[in-house]
Amino acid sequence: MKNVLHGRCIKCGKTFDAVTDLYACPLCSGIIEIEYDYDYIKHKINRETLAARRENSIWRYREFLPVKEESPPPGLRVGWTPLYPAQRLGAAIGLPRLYIKDDGFNPTSSMKDRASAIAIIKAKEGGFSVVACSSTGNAASSLAGGCAAEGLGAVIFVPRRAPQGKVAQLLIFGAKVVSVDGSYADTYHLSARAIQKWGWYNRNAAINPYLIEGKKTVALEIGEQLGFKAPDWVAISVGDGCSIAGVYKGFQDLYETGLIDRIPSLLSVQAEGCCPVNTAFLTGGELVPTAENTIADSIAVGEPRNPDKALHALRASNGAAVNVSDDEILDAMRMLGRNCGVFGEPAGTAALAGLRKAAANGLISPESAVVCIVTGNGLKDVQNGIKAAGDPLLIPPDMELLEQAFSVKKWI
Amino acid sequence: MKNVLHGRCIKCGKTFDAVTDLYACPLCSGIIEIEYDYDYIKHKINRETLAARRENSIWRYREFLPVKEESPPPGLRVGWTPLYPAQRLGAAIGLPRLYIKDDGFNPTSSMKDRASAIAIIKAKEGGFSVVACSSTGNAASSLAGGCAAEGLGAVIFVPRRAPQGKVAQLLIFGAKVVSVDGSYADTYHLSARAIQKWGWYNRNAAINPYLIEGKKTVALEIGEQLGFKAPDWVAISVGDGCSIAGVYKGFQDLYETGLIDRIPSLLSVQAEGCCPVNTAFLTGGELVPTAENTIADSIAVGEPRNPDKALHALRASNGAAVNVSDDEILDAMRMLGRNCGVFGEPAGTAALAGLRKAAANGLISPESAVVCIVTGNGLKDVQNGIKAAGDPLLIPPDMELLEQAFSVKKWI
Repeated sequence: MKNVLHGRCIKCGKTFDAVTDLYACPLCSGIIEIEYDYDYIKHKINRETLAARRENSIWRYREFLPVKEESPPPGLRVGWTPLYPAQRLGAAIGLPRLYIKDDGFNPTSSMKDRASAIAIIKAKEGGFSVVACSSTGNAASSLAGGCAAEGLGAVIFVPRRAPQGKVAQLLIFGAKVVSVDGSYADTYHLSARAIQKWGWYNRNAAINPYLIEGKKTVALEIGEQLGFKAPDWVAISVGDGCSIAGVYKGFQDLYETGLIDRIPSLLSVQAEGCCPVNTAFLTGGELVPTAENTIADSIAVGEPRNPDKALHALRASNGAAVNVSDDEILDAMRMLGRNCGVFGEPAGTAALAGLRKAAANGLISPESAVVCIVTGNGLKDVQNGIKAAGDPLLIPPDMELLEQAFSVKKWI
Repeated sequence: MKNVLHGRCIKCGKTFDAVTDLYACPLCSGIIEIEYDYDYIKHKINRETLAARRENSIWRYREFLPVKEESPPPGLRVGWTPLYPAQRLGAAIGLPRLYIKDDGFNPTSSMKDRASAIAIIKAKEGGFSVVACSSTGNAASSLAGGCAAEGLGAVIFVPRRAPQGKVAQLLIFGAKVVSVDGSYADTYHLSARAIQKWGWYNRNAAINPYLIEGKKTVALEIGEQLGFKAPDWVAISVGDGCSIAGVYKGFQDLYETGLIDRIPSLLSVQAEGCCPVNTAFLTGGELVPTAENTIADSIAVGEPRNPDKALHALRASNGAAVNVSDDEILDAMRMLGRNCGVFGEPAGTAALAGLRKAAANGLISPESAVVCIVTGNGLKDVQNGIKAAGDPLLIPPDMELLEQAFSVKKWI
């Protein structure tokens, strides 16, 4: 990989060759960060070369990806999701320069497809035939789908609470699915032991440094879709901490290669019932594991595996943190759907709920250009969608009854 | 519209100005077909101009769309869905040159987004503020999502059996939803009366001739994605008949403008429990309404509104018809997921089940280049996904129990 220098431990600073199965630092267990030769990349890529590319997927940013030059693209079309201007919604929450990045518009309907695509390429580069992970759901379904498309095996560990839609996806994709009767932390630990025992390729995003390199493509796209004018703020919901770290890394890549002239501030949104990263950020203390009390299953991570990179992203970007209630998340789900035609899962609309709060309390000014990343499609969690949306009007096929009902509901 | 000549009744042959609210023939109630000035289009568009376009949506085919030159593009990004080569799946069903067109990869996760996009543009051209339709679910959610994105009102009539995922989408998008306690035919008739009474724009695909013009974009894309080499066969599941008619129209457009040199044969796939179009085609008789007994809710249409265009598409393309059982549909859902990483809803995988049967009985030869259109995402109907996929392995977070369970299941 001519574009990659090495992996560097973010704790002890030691560097390591960027081999396929590079996981946590063997010296201090710190998380590894992939470092690039930005001069090399700058010679390969600029605004014009990017504009000329036809690839409408993460593959348009190949020079920014830690994959071998000869590796083929992912089997599924991942990334290049729409960035919608959202004036009406923005006006409603006091941020008229709002954009919605609909990352549910991915092959298995979540942003995690970006990370899994890289994991699968790395597994193939390393000659692995099975990839495994633990996941609250989305990472799992993205891995299972991607593996199915490439003929690789997938072993998935999910906590029992994972929504039906996500589990159905896994099984349809032919993954071996272990539903763990415990918390996400229990699930993670069991998967780690099994992966070690059976020697599968490890897709756990916090321990595999290449995963964030997939997630970062969402930021590369936002940069290009806004004409390389960095927005003032980018809001994203936070669970394990890998996604916000990926967003930061993407903007850092664009900045270091001169494609944007500043890095946006990041807004970390967590659920009130599970906000260990935000608490650590706001208090400046160590991360303390918490309970996992929220409907937003994708970010219900009481013991995040990657707080270091997430906290670094927040601090280095002059970011901020906001917690939101489940009711605020459901309210944001309705607002997003009604104003934009985008159906986000609870974790996906948490970011919007956070932005609304940040605008209301003056943390983000109305002049700001703001991007809200919707990380997953609401179809993955229909039960919560129904909770947010209410019920239809049920009537027999009779015109008179219809007129009466419409009149009662004031629909006419 | 410089590219459009007029609407022509396919029954009496009379032509009409292509006004916004052109519905069925006012003389004989026949269905209207939009006819184009192909010479005009040929001067505007060719393989090279298309290849140079950056629009990765239906908007790249603007000259083929019945919309005013000044109309803005749809608010949501519709179309340009992936066409995946599917050698492994193809080999498994005896059609090694198989491609999967994943049309669940649309903003509200079904092919119906293509039709709704045109309906919404026409409604705006005509100054309407509310659009209405009846639907088994997908047309409804696509209309509701598209209207939300554009600030239009949507009134939706669905049969009570519509799956939860689809209804949740509608409500999240803020549509006024009427769940009709009756068949799809009951639902359709009630919607027709309400639309007439309250003067909404009518998105019912069988009566609104512009809708098929949206659906046809799936064929325009298939043509371009295969380098303008028409495949031998294109398989699609059939309910109301509008989708297969749209596919035919798209290939006809490509053929008439010299972009492809022949029109592929179309394979109509219906469920055994609801196959009135296939029966009419195979017997050569009139269409007889039937019951609606299938899990594939999107194609459970016992009294199709558009059999004429569907039958024309089948006959004119030297097509064929195959019926499949619900078990075959679920089996195809598993095969598609496991081999391609694509999760299709039952109606979406019915086409694959039909292809498998057509290959097995020699109707389609193994040398054929074949495209299977997957019309909707399986997340819309998780219950049937679970039916197809089975259950995960549920265990406590304990390594010894995991080893035992893996050994019993022969997963290691």
